[in-house]
Amino acid sequence: MTNPVLVEVLRGTLVESAHRGSVVVVDADGKTVLALGDVAKPVFPRSAVKAIQALPFVESGAAEAYGFGDRELALACASHSGEPAHAELAAAMLAKAGLGLEALECGAHWPSGQTAMVGLARSGAAPSALHNNCSGKHSAFVCTCRHLGIAHQGYVRPEHRFQQMVRETMEAVTGAAHNETNRGTDGCSIPTFAVPLQNLAQGFARMTTGNGLAPERAKAARRLMSACMAEPFLVAGTARADTDLMHAAQGRIFVKIGAEGVYCAAIPELGLGIALKCDDGAGRAAEVMIAAVLAKLMAADETLAEKLTKAANPILKNWNGIEVASLRPTEAFG
Amino acid sequence: MTNPVLVEVLRGTLVESAHRGSVVVVDADGKTVLALGDVAKPVFPRSAVKAIQALPFVESGAAEAYGFGDRELALACASHSGEPAHAELAAAMLAKAGLGLEALECGAHWPSGQTAMVGLARSGAAPSALHNNCSGKHSAFVCTCRHLGIAHQGYVRPEHRFQQMVRETMEAVTGAAHNETNRGTDGCSIPTFAVPLQNLAQGFARMTTGNGLAPERAKAARRLMSACMAEPFLVAGTARADTDLMHAAQGRIFVKIGAEGVYCAAIPELGLGIALKCDDGAGRAAEVMIAAVLAKLMAADETLAEKLTKAANPILKNWNGIEVASLRPTEAFG
Repeated sequence: MTNPVLVEVLRGTLVESAHRGSVVVVDADGKTVLALGDVAKPVFPRSAVKAIQALPFVESGAAEAYGFGDRELALACASHSGEPAHAELAAAMLAKAGLGLEALECGAHWPSGQTAMVGLARSGAAPSALHNNCSGKHSAFVCTCRHLGIAHQGYVRPEHRFQQMVRETMEAVTGAAHNETNRGTDGCSIPTFAVPLQNLAQGFARMTTGNGLAPERAKAARRLMSACMAEPFLVAGTARADTDLMHAAQGRIFVKIGAEGVYCAAIPELGLGIALKCDDGAGRAAEVMIAAVLAKLMAADETLAEKLTKAANPILKNWNGIEVASLRPTEAFG
Repeated sequence: MTNPVLVEVLRGTLVESAHRGSVVVVDADGKTVLALGDVAKPVFPRSAVKAIQALPFVESGAAEAYGFGDRELALACASHSGEPAHAELAAAMLAKAGLGLEALECGAHWPSGQTAMVGLARSGAAPSALHNNCSGKHSAFVCTCRHLGIAHQGYVRPEHRFQQMVRETMEAVTGAAHNETNRGTDGCSIPTFAVPLQNLAQGFARMTTGNGLAPERAKAARRLMSACMAEPFLVAGTARADTDLMHAAQGRIFVKIGAEGVYCAAIPELGLGIALKCDDGAGRAAEVMIAAVLAKLMAADETLAEKLTKAANPILKNWNGIEVASLRPTEAFG
């Protein structure tokens, strides 16, 4: 099936570009509450499932043993902008486990945040693995290995014992098979597995309600998502959608973007899990889609719905600060 | 109509994302040689038509009067990466007309090239309008105003006499009306007008063959496109598609990307003009589309076609240098 156009980009009064995609919302019983487009098609969730991948970090007792709180747990689930606070916290997590940044196998890249990038360049330093947007997740990974007494070297590889734990956790939470036939490699070198979009939504419904999860896992899931909602800056950064949406919702919505236009979210008070994918992989459109579907689901709270609707209709300014374009969700959202 | 999927993004062996779009190739007589998708739909060409917008710069005699050669003409048609050679040449063009960078009304932004951005940041300097990817075009604009004795102030505004000259030139070359109903504002603050994709292709067929253009205009068009093909680095920059494609074709193909997934091109020896638009605005997909259609049109030259086919099938590496994804044109290209 051809997915519907869910987001339009306007320049002047004309539609300049358009984004298709699929969105699914699943409740605590696994029932589909809303579906737009093909929600059975396998999708690589990429970084949108970092909170699920972080479950062994909490379940193993590693997070508690090292004395980590909301800040470290939020960073473990983050795709951060490489701002000083992010890089410093990742380094502090490693230090608690007696490790240095050489333990990280995610690779180095310049901070994605422009101010952070310019600041780092001006300091004369080069970017390290601590600036990699995934450094919090990787720090949590090696801390967990250390706590469990597993040699952390090679922890990014599919056959490593720790990566097998992550895969088993992902299978249990999403209910979808993870094997060599649906495996790819993520930007930070760990495996990523394509699973049906509806399984991702169901996974986040389970994460927030605990339905279908063992009690310890349900507790760890709530702990991680609460940490992200309490420390939204550490999940992304300055002027980033994850941070702004969770800040606006003040602890009532969990959201996480993934590369190539994926978004996962959960609304604890409604017991709902949400997953979406922009067909063409555009993050700008995925951000509009998640804000639009959240505005619809939270319509009963007019103040919050208004903020979410505003986030779903961003204005684009040019280099002279003139408003030249805008994005908007289409009527497909109803 | 729904445009076909023209580009797929693969991760592992699975399609992760897909891009739809439309492509049209027009010959010297205005006949459509190839059409994929809806080619009658109006599209904002953005920077893909800079060579047409630069015609008054040559036709007015400004370029000759200031002693400009291939390098300055190429920069006038450029969306450059803000590397030192680009910024310095724009400054030199302004100086020839007795102007400084304060004459530019395009706004300032950090160089789009990462090495250039880091270098500028390390120098302690801030970006100026000279680093704006459009600074060559804007320098040519104000040089032309100066040569014609028109006050350059406000030259970006639709009602300015110079902008009217640009609009009339665009109308004559593309054969499409440019007015308030199809007008938007570009990133650099000048007007951009949405016209049918087939008119853009026809415009570039005219630019390269001279058919339907006055002799002086035909000469200016050939002069500008020859300059771009002779100095491809100045049209874009390090590791940029425009530069790499024109470098590979060694003077036999003119190409120019525009924002939001637009590409225009011309093949002088075949008398063909090409225009394409990726529906969702992705530059990565537009780059694959242009390379794929050029490979098809230049199939008779196996060596060149092989280079173009390679450009149409880029491999994406992650931060550890591991090949994790790739792009490919679909069977729609035949």
